[in-house]
Amino acid sequence: MIIVLRPNSSQAEIDHVLDRIKELGLKPHLSQGEHRTIIGVIGDENKLQAEPLQAIPGVEQVLPIMKPFKLASREFNKADTVVAVGKVKVGGGSLAMIAGPCAVESREVLNEIAGHVKKAGANILRGGAFKPRTSPYSFQGLGEEGLKILRDVGARHDMPVVTEVMDPRQLPLVEKYADMLQIGARNMQNFDLLKEIGQSKKPVLLKRGMSATVKDMLMSAEYILSEGNPNLVLCERGVRSFEDSTRNMLDMSAVPNVKGLSHLPIVVDPSHATGRPDLIPSMAWAAVAAGADGVHVEVHSCPEKALSDGPQALLPKRFEELMDRLRRIAEVMGKSLS
Amino acid sequence: MIIVLRPNSSQAEIDHVLDRIKELGLKPHLSQGEHRTIIGVIGDENKLQAEPLQAIPGVEQVLPIMKPFKLASREFNKADTVVAVGKVKVGGGSLAMIAGPCAVESREVLNEIAGHVKKAGANILRGGAFKPRTSPYSFQGLGEEGLKILRDVGARHDMPVVTEVMDPRQLPLVEKYADMLQIGARNMQNFDLLKEIGQSKKPVLLKRGMSATVKDMLMSAEYILSEGNPNLVLCERGVRSFEDSTRNMLDMSAVPNVKGLSHLPIVVDPSHATGRPDLIPSMAWAAVAAGADGVHVEVHSCPEKALSDGPQALLPKRFEELMDRLRRIAEVMGKSLS
Amino acid sequence: MIIVLRPNSSQAEIDHVLDRIKELGLKPHLSQGEHRTIIGVIGDENKLQAEPLQAIPGVEQVLPIMKPFKLASREFNKADTVVAVGKVKVGGGSLAMIAGPCAVESREVLNEIAGHVKKAGANILRGGAFKPRTSPYSFQGLGEEGLKILRDVGARHDMPVVTEVMDPRQLPLVEKYADMLQIGARNMQNFDLLKEIGQSKKPVLLKRGMSATVKDMLMSAEYILSEGNPNLVLCERGVRSFEDSTRNMLDMSAVPNVKGLSHLPIVVDPSHATGRPDLIPSMAWAAVAAGADGVHVEVHSCPEKALSDGPQALLPKRFEELMDRLRRIAEVMGKSLS
Amino acid sequence: MIIVLRPNSSQAEIDHVLDRIKELGLKPHLSQGEHRTIIGVIGDENKLQAEPLQAIPGVEQVLPIMKPFKLASREFNKADTVVAVGKVKVGGGSLAMIAGPCAVESREVLNEIAGHVKKAGANILRGGAFKPRTSPYSFQGLGEEGLKILRDVGARHDMPVVTEVMDPRQLPLVEKYADMLQIGARNMQNFDLLKEIGQSKKPVLLKRGMSATVKDMLMSAEYILSEGNPNLVLCERGVRSFEDSTRNMLDMSAVPNVKGLSHLPIVVDPSHATGRPDLIPSMAWAAVAAGADGVHVEVHSCPEKALSDGPQALLPKRFEELMDRLRRIAEVMGKSLS
Repeated sequence: MIIVLRPNSSQAEIDHVLDRIKELGLKPHLSQGEHRTIIGVIGDENKLQAEPLQAIPGVEQVLPIMKPFKLASREFNKADTVVAVGKVKVGGGSLAMIAGPCAVESREVLNEIAGHVKKAGANILRGGAFKPRTSPYSFQGLGEEGLKILRDVGARHDMPVVTEVMDPRQLPLVEKYADMLQIGARNMQNFDLLKEIGQSKKPVLLKRGMSATVKDMLMSAEYILSEGNPNLVLCERGVRSFEDSTRNMLDMSAVPNVKGLSHLPIVVDPSHATGRPDLIPSMAWAAVAAGADGVHVEVHSCPEKALSDGPQALLPKRFEELMDRLRRIAEVMGKSLS
Repeated sequence: MIIVLRPNSSQAEIDHVLDRIKELGLKPHLSQGEHRTIIGVIGDENKLQAEPLQAIPGVEQVLPIMKPFKLASREFNKADTVVAVGKVKVGGGSLAMIAGPCAVESREVLNEIAGHVKKAGANILRGGAFKPRTSPYSFQGLGEEGLKILRDVGARHDMPVVTEVMDPRQLPLVEKYADMLQIGARNMQNFDLLKEIGQSKKPVLLKRGMSATVKDMLMSAEYILSEGNPNLVLCERGVRSFEDSTRNMLDMSAVPNVKGLSHLPIVVDPSHATGRPDLIPSMAWAAVAAGADGVHVEVHSCPEKALSDGPQALLPKRFEELMDRLRRIAEVMGKSLS
Repeated sequence: MIIVLRPNSSQAEIDHVLDRIKELGLKPHLSQGEHRTIIGVIGDENKLQAEPLQAIPGVEQVLPIMKPFKLASREFNKADTVVAVGKVKVGGGSLAMIAGPCAVESREVLNEIAGHVKKAGANILRGGAFKPRTSPYSFQGLGEEGLKILRDVGARHDMPVVTEVMDPRQLPLVEKYADMLQIGARNMQNFDLLKEIGQSKKPVLLKRGMSATVKDMLMSAEYILSEGNPNLVLCERGVRSFEDSTRNMLDMSAVPNVKGLSHLPIVVDPSHATGRPDLIPSMAWAAVAAGADGVHVEVHSCPEKALSDGPQALLPKRFEELMDRLRRIAEVMGKSLS
Repeated sequence: MIIVLRPNSSQAEIDHVLDRIKELGLKPHLSQGEHRTIIGVIGDENKLQAEPLQAIPGVEQVLPIMKPFKLASREFNKADTVVAVGKVKVGGGSLAMIAGPCAVESREVLNEIAGHVKKAGANILRGGAFKPRTSPYSFQGLGEEGLKILRDVGARHDMPVVTEVMDPRQLPLVEKYADMLQIGARNMQNFDLLKEIGQSKKPVLLKRGMSATVKDMLMSAEYILSEGNPNLVLCERGVRSFEDSTRNMLDMSAVPNVKGLSHLPIVVDPSHATGRPDLIPSMAWAAVAAGADGVHVEVHSCPEKALSDGPQALLPKRFEELMDRLRRIAEVMGKSLS
């Protein structure tokens, strides 16, 4: 940690800072120059929370130099983590292709969509039973009935299933039916939910919050890992921006950025990121070329009758085309579908 | 609702759209021009969800013209809502001055701070017992012990107290001790929490999410109102932006913007918005001049020893100065502290 | 400057960094800890550009600790700068009230508007003769004819006039007619224009760019100051954000933020910041309460016929109301209209 | 154009709007519903500027339905435009690989870098002679001397050259030496510069502004096209965002987004977008997979001694690796280097 003092800090202020550091059993290194005094603190940075030091009179800036996440960091685990979702591997050369409708609407519709995506090459089926909707008047999901349908249709097509948990109280129920637990973007910093899911043994799909930095996402991952659940896949799904022609802005560079900082697999969701079916295939291809460990796409056989997010769903025909080229790009990247 | 068709939409596509509208018992108005065909739909816009229509081939844009929130809207309630928090009124000319430390740390520290802020003119005491922290390794709050301290210290200084609820399971506990329930920025779209709190009878302080638009905030308000709790105060606390010299960007225009769209009171939190004590007083004054129904400020008598957010806390002395000028600006605005 | 090395940097890498620092005649301070090595550089930070050092293998971060602007900084000039625009003073307790139409449209219309704003208390008249329009097909301003009208109408109502310069080649012409030169948001980093205007003797109104940080704005100010023109007034006019109900997001905290960093006066333009007449008065009041040295408002007597930005113009009647309360808030702030 | 009236608009207000529309020789279509009145205007939308209508009392929203750009639109030109830069084709299946240092520093350094990038497969050489620097104290480029070096080195390696024009007054000089004129991000809305360059016959590389939407970029393209220069290549180079671990946020979806709206070629610049050499190769590959017509990369043989933007430059060795995989992805996309 580096503590930069204000240009005219007094000796008393400097001494006060030095005392606080020594109180914590750490060793300060003082550098006094013409313009500024700097104090480097060498030792266990964790003992010294950055924040309170900044409140000391005479202190201008406190610059932490260690990353705030540990278990999620590449330093902690040099090798890429591979997460098993049922028989499907995610990470380390194995791509997840997660597809399905936004919401589970009925057994028939889900079954039809699952048949299409399985045939085209998807290996994990998605579908929401509990839906986080902006409006209280919108369709909120089928609940347990939806979970049962999802499990049954997944089993029928031999695909593990992923679905969202919105509330810690839903966890026991969702765990009964799902192979993978999704934490939605709006809940990325719902810390009680993160802790609860950290105690589950099921693999987790953690979506990036709408205004979360890459580091914020890794801190949320740290909550789950530190509770004991190592089966974590991250998901870039776009962030809020001023651009108004797409639903969000897909931060494609988050893929190699996360891979440099962390050992965790990361997939990309171009459906929520763009909200536009015409942009989804290109973004799925780009995601694989960027090094992603998978893609998450919403597919619906009749988007205009979808109960949720219809306009961003891809038709099965277009999903097939997406998969054809995606396989060839995966090959160039030395990866394959699990 | 207005449906704009693509430049070269076919007659079959147009007919398909018209049929869908009539199926729902609504009446389409067709306008065919040189360049474009437009269909206006007059009737109950709620029957017709905008999204699925956008998925119909040939449709370019669907433009809803009614606001998606109702109970929160100014049309629903022309008069300003006044929320009672204990004996304190918020809204309609009465200002809330919510002050206190970020977290409840101990009875002694809270008591000292409460004494200062009460004397300076604050009328609601704040303090967190459950803390949403970015890092799992940071201080997470004192829990029930903190709630007890908060209630006791509030009673001793004759101030109602507000504290955060992070999880629906905490609600019964927090309701026992608090006069007002806070929903933090990170939980603004934790819809299960909103629904649960909507069933409480306690007044609620709903903070704007870090990347929520003003309309998103009013939709979250709608969740609470539609569950039956009308005692709602909104809080502008800054949003994420590219500016890196402040913690967030305080969207001051949200104050008159909300007042035009909604009857609900709105307060401003310059502590979280700026993260900088040197900017807090000016922003508190500006908030009142902008028409806010109150201000929410973190105060700590020893910021360098605060267990959470110390660097953004104001010293009691500076809080007094803030209050002195704030009262005079309130007078110009025709408002006063309750 | 502080140089943080990567966790596993080699001795050779460390030596290479030390050599580069000594080559520049500077003195490195080495701190080697368990986890990290840090090098503090004490001396003239300007000799050492941060960027190239960051490219040295083994270097993780380079943290400059001095501000990159000098002439614009509060350290350079402790006292508030007061800029004279004709007989009007801006800064140091004197408020500028800049008002007028977006564009100069005709002598008659400008004269009518000038009469209104003068009577209500404005002290500087604005109007564009060269207009930066997003579309090449929109009205681009009256050019020299507009400048003449502006000068004449200003003289008739005894108000100095401010107008935009978009191109260095227009400068000699605009200087002939205007009392103050405006640099628009889109040109805040048009460095050739900044240099040219820095050689003028006329006072300058520099608007913040749509995605400029406060520091970027002060760096652009530095361009003008370093060319020799000290008569500079900054203007906060909103930045781009995800909020779609206002044209831009007014960063009100930029006012005290700039005042802490710099001696230059700063005014606020709520017209461009919000794009909404219903929000302009509140934001003008808030600006003065935040400590601004003035307000910049677009006023038009018939907004629906305005050739540019009509919908954001305030009617003269509402401008009067704005001024009435603004004067009272100015009084609380210890300021007055020049 | 669609005009939505406020809920309680009076008949007089409605008539006033209808009159204004008829005055302009256009035909209004009135739809009166239970809650709202809507007026559709069919005819030449250009006659009717959206803005002033919004200022009419009783009007809530004015929704333009035609795109504001014409010559840049896909409707204007169904086929992909192919721009010739010297012998190199950009667009329609031919990829531009633009590489070189940020700034021209000396004949020797440029020659060395040009040799490397040419050998690795680049087909256009870049290098700045006029540099837009945030600080007036930073290296501002070699000016004409830099242009000469660039032309000579380009000729020696048989590569056309691209370099930035910052000021309309520099245009005659730059045109003498360069094969392609670059307009930098900071000048994307320097409309006088756009007009001047629109009158040149040289091909143009127009970079997206830091807070420009895709539509803003196409409007700036329209300025150039409408002045008569059709040889235009767009460039996505990242936009400002809250993410602080990359220099900007690369909006990868802008590639297919632009391709849907416009016939113009678009290349991607991962160097400025990310500012991080470790992310550049992945982003170059993703760009080609997303459908870009080329990539723009800064390469330097000794980044730590670069006079500008060293830390974001790629080493020649890593550029070769980038090119190897890029060729294979281009093949999957049915494209090749010109």
